[in-house]
Amino acid sequence: MTETLTGTPLTLTAFDWVPPVAQGLVRDLRVRWALKEAALPYEVELLAMGTQGEPAHLARQPFGQVPVLTAAQTPMFESGAILWRIAEAGGDALLPPDRAGRDRTLSWVFAALNTVEPPITMHQQMTRLAVDKEAAEIMEREVRKAVERRLGQLQATMEGRDWLVAERFTAADLLMATVLRGLRHTQIVAQFPKLEDYLARCTARPAFREALAEQLAPFEENAPRYAAE
Amino acid sequence: MTETLTGTPLTLTAFDWVPPVAQGLVRDLRVRWALKEAALPYEVELLAMGTQGEPAHLARQPFGQVPVLTAAQTPMFESGAILWRIAEAGGDALLPPDRAGRDRTLSWVFAALNTVEPPITMHQQMTRLAVDKEAAEIMEREVRKAVERRLGQLQATMEGRDWLVAERFTAADLLMATVLRGLRHTQIVAQFPKLEDYLARCTARPAFREALAEQLAPFEENAPRYAAE
Repeated sequence: MTETLTGTPLTLTAFDWVPPVAQGLVRDLRVRWALKEAALPYEVELLAMGTQGEPAHLARQPFGQVPVLTAAQTPMFESGAILWRIAEAGGDALLPPDRAGRDRTLSWVFAALNTVEPPITMHQQMTRLAVDKEAAEIMEREVRKAVERRLGQLQATMEGRDWLVAERFTAADLLMATVLRGLRHTQIVAQFPKLEDYLARCTARPAFREALAEQLAPFEENAPRYAAE
Repeated sequence: MTETLTGTPLTLTAFDWVPPVAQGLVRDLRVRWALKEAALPYEVELLAMGTQGEPAHLARQPFGQVPVLTAAQTPMFESGAILWRIAEAGGDALLPPDRAGRDRTLSWVFAALNTVEPPITMHQQMTRLAVDKEAAEIMEREVRKAVERRLGQLQATMEGRDWLVAERFTAADLLMATVLRGLRHTQIVAQFPKLEDYLARCTARPAFREALAEQLAPFEENAPRYAAE
């Protein structure tokens, strides 16, 4: 499984700038973090904000999103897919060595993205993106309950453990941490002390700190240019 | 990759009954469909509705959901994870034979679940689950735009093709079809004729029809019992 990611130059496509509300949350963060954990070298190609809907980008990312990871001229999209591919290519860096541990990690990768993240995305919609603020505020209270329910279940499974799978950091923790960070503009995670500790444990990793700094650097550099436009 | 799924009895856990609004949408449908496409034999264990929060089930599915697929005493959860595992174990049934085709399928698997499904889940929340109907109706109009945007992008990528990857049915189509079916109580998919055709093409497959019938049969059988409670 490792053949196409190791030994080939990897290019990660990310935005050259995003609005402050999204800075530190854009999903190339997951990929940078994973590549650093797996010690896979890569280059970064920055896409000018506003050009993501142009045919050249849509040809490799049908929804005009980032990240894209290109290996051997073949682009992959979706941070979850790219992360899983890096995990498989990365030896033991992001996965337990045994089949059962890998299967369990895969289950948790999808749980992070398809069970825990959707109510958080909904909550972001109600608190950040909604146009009708009054209706959004009412719905936010309902959606918050859905988020709290999932976080309560997640906290229950963390009882007595530091990591989701196999008593070690895996691809599943990497994803879950980035999912929980989507609530950073709220106090919701703080209601779940074990999750707050878990998130701090994940984001204390040097690879996370480096990945975050690397995503933010061009945003700061390019901010004056976008402010002037 | 195939060793733990082939040659071991597989047990799929599903509900014995769900409310009519969810019948035909419960996510074990994806797994039944995939197992039939891959010609992997399995047994079904039905979980009594209302017992999904009990410790025995939470030990294998931390969020109290279905499906669970158990192979060699090891339970996997999350329909996306299980589907990917079946796809890898199923030879060419659900995946192209080449690495690039498999990577592209993996990208589309995550796109279905993490880019197309979340706004659809949000739309279901506003149209089905919300308590404050007035606020939900206002938000539904905003959320519908997010759904339509994604479906528009998806339709654009389907231009000139019948399937998402490699001009053949793959695990990505299986998932995308089940995601689009989440809008069955609306007319939204009908606004995108290419997607409507695509969905019909997917659900015309014998394995889908059989999987759907198999999910629905116990619901009908057990309905009187749940109505009486």
